[in-house]
Amino acid sequence: MNIVLFRDSQVRIMENTVIDAEKYFGQFCSLLAAYARKTARLRDKADQVVLRLIDFANTENPEMRATLRNFAEDLAKVQDYRQAQVERLEVKVVTPLKLYGAQIKQTRAEIKKFTRTRNNEIKQLEKLEKLRQKSPWDRQTISQAETSVQKASVDTSRTTRQLVETVDAFQKQKLKDLQKIFLDFVTIELAFHTKAVEVYSSAFPTLQNCDLDRDLEDFRAKMRGVYGHYDARLLVDTTPSVAVPWSLPGQPAQSTIRSQRKEEEESEDEAAEEDLEASLGGRGRRASHRTRAPQSEN
Amino acid sequence: MNIVLFRDSQVRIMENTVIDAEKYFGQFCSLLAAYARKTARLRDKADQVVLRLIDFANTENPEMRATLRNFAEDLAKVQDYRQAQVERLEVKVVTPLKLYGAQIKQTRAEIKKFTRTRNNEIKQLEKLEKLRQKSPWDRQTISQAETSVQKASVDTSRTTRQLVETVDAFQKQKLKDLQKIFLDFVTIELAFHTKAVEVYSSAFPTLQNCDLDRDLEDFRAKMRGVYGHYDARLLVDTTPSVAVPWSLPGQPAQSTIRSQRKEEEESEDEAAEEDLEASLGGRGRRASHRTRAPQSEN
Repeated sequence: MNIVLFRDSQVRIMENTVIDAEKYFGQFCSLLAAYARKTARLRDKADQVVLRLIDFANTENPEMRATLRNFAEDLAKVQDYRQAQVERLEVKVVTPLKLYGAQIKQTRAEIKKFTRTRNNEIKQLEKLEKLRQKSPWDRQTISQAETSVQKASVDTSRTTRQLVETVDAFQKQKLKDLQKIFLDFVTIELAFHTKAVEVYSSAFPTLQNCDLDRDLEDFRAKMRGVYGHYDARLLVDTTPSVAVPWSLPGQPAQSTIRSQRKEEEESEDEAAEEDLEASLGGRGRRASHRTRAPQSEN
Repeated sequence: MNIVLFRDSQVRIMENTVIDAEKYFGQFCSLLAAYARKTARLRDKADQVVLRLIDFANTENPEMRATLRNFAEDLAKVQDYRQAQVERLEVKVVTPLKLYGAQIKQTRAEIKKFTRTRNNEIKQLEKLEKLRQKSPWDRQTISQAETSVQKASVDTSRTTRQLVETVDAFQKQKLKDLQKIFLDFVTIELAFHTKAVEVYSSAFPTLQNCDLDRDLEDFRAKMRGVYGHYDARLLVDTTPSVAVPWSLPGQPAQSTIRSQRKEEEESEDEAAEEDLEASLGGRGRRASHRTRAPQSEN
């Protein structure tokens, strides 16, 4: 009976090896599949930010518009890399873990086969023991029982060897696969994060170099230039305000009373045009500050 | 009437500036809040992987156990950085976008005030026009109406100037904040991804240097060493199998029949112990391959 106990312990190790693998590989599989899914959701959310950035860029003046578009482009690039990350996680991490099911099934079948064979041997041994106690004189039956025990024992030995080989191969493969799957995980993550660092590193100066003053000038020019040579006059007060930066120094401080306006319209037309030109000239100058290629402004 | 049209256009630009800002800042706020939340979910999922890795490590032999624990530790480290990323996104990106609501409200109130004042001026003008047509002789009433128009016009001018100043300041602040918020976003992302690259770069060799052969030896030693000097004999077949790597060359090829076993148990005891020692010696040698500090094996 001691022998059987020893074997039980060994079988328990083998069984546990397979049971643990089944349990944990299953958990890793569903957790890492969920990890990939959550990554995909993060990508979706960032994609929405990209779309809103492009929409918003279209409401802004050229300088901020170009900056926002470039930023949207960079953010989209990171999401492309994230998409690649998700796909690679599926193929190189989740799928191999999923495929483990079949391998584990086979090893479990091997354990069952061994258990059956061993139980048969025990049965034969018990039968022989019984015979020896009950009818020690029945040499022929005892001899037949001894042959059965011997045969069952050979079977058990063969099955045990097969089991040990199977579990050994299983463990060897498991360790190898485990290492490979997690190495692939790290490689995939590493590739993504490296690319993200690359893209965001270039996005930073693009954002930082956005010429806000120029953009504000464009905004001010739009307010007075396109619609309002008339309105430009509104902005020139008797007490020139610092907060209204486009009050032209050449213009006289003037009353804002309606009845005087019409006569002044024509002369101010020229002043407004001059200012618009200056503003456009200013844009040309500052173009050299930009870090992105000009086509990204389109 | 032309004058009023010009003004409408200008007001429309101002209104759109505020309306667009309200719309897009609101969208960015909720999208980036969702982005932060999805990032937090990804962190949670990875944290679960960490816990399972530690559980699983405890079922493995020392070499793989240490490797899995180190890997779990690295993965946990990345999640700590992700946690910092989530918190910083909340504080430096989502909250500033949220606070925009108040600023936008104030600017909208300014626009409403202007519209009211302007409508009053138009009303006064219309009243004056009517008077001039209906009772051109009533100098006193006309004079009173003219004074009202003049007063209303002064009001409109002042309110217009205030509005222009407010919208100008709003736009200026908006551009600045926009740049700052997105720069902060990039900085936060950059910091996280840089740290992730750092951690995964060190995780890679740790995983790669895991000595699978040594781990397999431990597994085999466990199967035959702890429970089974007896079982070890089972593994030695008449036809030595390559797939059973621990068949000792010094042992004779022998029958696996039960009845022979008991006599052989003692001699094999020694062989099994020798083998265990060799295996332990092997572990000591290979320890120099490891990249991690020994305490991480505990």
